Amino acid sequence: MASPDPRLLSLNTATVRECWNLAQMIEGCARHGIRGISPWRDKLDELGAAEAARRILAAGLTVTGLCRGGMFPARTQAGRKAAIRDNLKAIEDAATIGAKCLVLVVGGLPAKSRDLAGAREQVMEGIAAILPHARQCGVPLAIEPLHPMYAADRACVNTLAQALDLCDALDPKRSGALGVAVDVYHVWWDPELQAQIKRAGRKRILAYHICDWLVPTTDLLLDRGMMGDGVIDLKRIRSWVEGAGYRGFHEVEIFSRANWWRRDPDEVLRIIKKRHRGC
Amino acid sequence: MASPDPRLLSLNTATVRECWNLAQMIEGCARHGIRGISPWRDKLDELGAAEAARRILAAGLTVTGLCRGGMFPARTQAGRKAAIRDNLKAIEDAATIGAKCLVLVVGGLPAKSRDLAGAREQVMEGIAAILPHARQCGVPLAIEPLHPMYAADRACVNTLAQALDLCDALDPKRSGALGVAVDVYHVWWDPELQAQIKRAGRKRILAYHICDWLVPTTDLLLDRGMMGDGVIDLKRIRSWVEGAGYRGFHEVEIFSRANWWRRDPDEVLRIIKKRHRGC
Repeated sequence: MASPDPRLLSLNTATVRECWNLAQMIEGCARHGIRGISPWRDKLDELGAAEAARRILAAGLTVTGLCRGGMFPARTQAGRKAAIRDNLKAIEDAATIGAKCLVLVVGGLPAKSRDLAGAREQVMEGIAAILPHARQCGVPLAIEPLHPMYAADRACVNTLAQALDLCDALDPKRSGALGVAVDVYHVWWDPELQAQIKRAGRKRILAYHICDWLVPTTDLLLDRGMMGDGVIDLKRIRSWVEGAGYRGFHEVEIFSRANWWRRDPDEVLRIIKKRHRGC
Repeated sequence: MASPDPRLLSLNTATVRECWNLAQMIEGCARHGIRGISPWRDKLDELGAAEAARRILAAGLTVTGLCRGGMFPARTQAGRKAAIRDNLKAIEDAATIGAKCLVLVVGGLPAKSRDLAGAREQVMEGIAAILPHARQCGVPLAIEPLHPMYAADRACVNTLAQALDLCDALDPKRSGALGVAVDVYHVWWDPELQAQIKRAGRKRILAYHICDWLVPTTDLLLDRGMMGDGVIDLKRIRSWVEGAGYRGFHEVEIFSRANWWRRDPDEVLRIIKKRHRGC
């Protein structure tokens, strides 16, 4: 299988978030010839969306996504309404920076709740509530199924099949307004992965995130690996994603407290570019 | 929903493995009126299967399972054959102690491999190779789907659906020789859980393991919670399991380096009995 086009590389700001601010990340991508960027909202807030948009445009970068909306479930109706307001704001910011999608990390169980089915219903209601505004703003919503180890506290949508069921329920015509973010870290283990990527198809795959699963993994959240350092068959999964018609960016998102977050970000970007060739 | 019958409580030896040897566990169960026990093989080896069987019988305990067989995938054919020999021995030990089943933790990726589909094929071949001996010995094999966070290093069977597909392929007549161990820790997050428990039915559910998922979870392997301390809806899952016709034991298996393993096992057993009422 041929190496991927280096022009499809995108930097998720989580990867270098400890050492660089957003302005530095934009300059860094431009300096290293990385053509895509995907900011988290905390970084976007440093500059404000309008100023960030201006700088990203000036640097010639594509915004492959805004991370993140979601976090819908809450104990009270007031809490759920607050989440929806926050998502509407995120949609507007995503529109301002011209993001290809708003990534939704949908949220887990409300405090003191064990009602997983109920949380999943709240997620569906939340997405339904914000979808019209997303359509108006021209910002596709990308539901990101998270690894099942995050079902309680981060996202109760845990498989691609489940995310696609939500898409089919809320956007049955496959309008392009609703789809999924496929992050290999979350879905690599899934026996249905190939079939569900095919089911998603070009219309539903809005983002593709890469990193690696380390053995052993020492932290549930902050021990992701650089591509090539773990056990994920990145070439095979890319072949499935491309086979489904996806032609978008490959976004590198690495949470790594003990390793990559401690390194010089210029070094990290050089290694990302090199490793991307083997993905 | 009524509290479960306390006579259905079983102690998996992993729960008190740091403080007690198998002889102490057998005595402890008898002393606390816990009527089931499920030893791991390291504990069984302390006494030898025959002597362990004698003591367990004398104490009037039911052996709800032997943990564990499995670990089939290996880089070389010699490695795979060694795994099968080890499983045949485990089947014999399970027969000696009169275990209701041999629990299979099927194994993850072979060293340096990223071929998850290949590992899954090796698992199917391994189970197929040992199933005749298990039938001869009258020891049902219980495939335990493990949480997806263990896909790389412990078990590449990660959902109940996947385990049941293996059962259907290898034992299409539902003879009772092959089924699943349902451990809530591994499957509680699964959107298909209710449907797959129903699909499994009485014939395929060979064991039911309980504990809880803590928020936050601080270790991928050794931070399981006591029933009631986490977010798993144990009553609901029990209702599904009983709805499928399961009438067997509820086996408590808690790996907890920082908490339960440090406590006095007599205290742990008292708390287990109390918490079981709320499951």
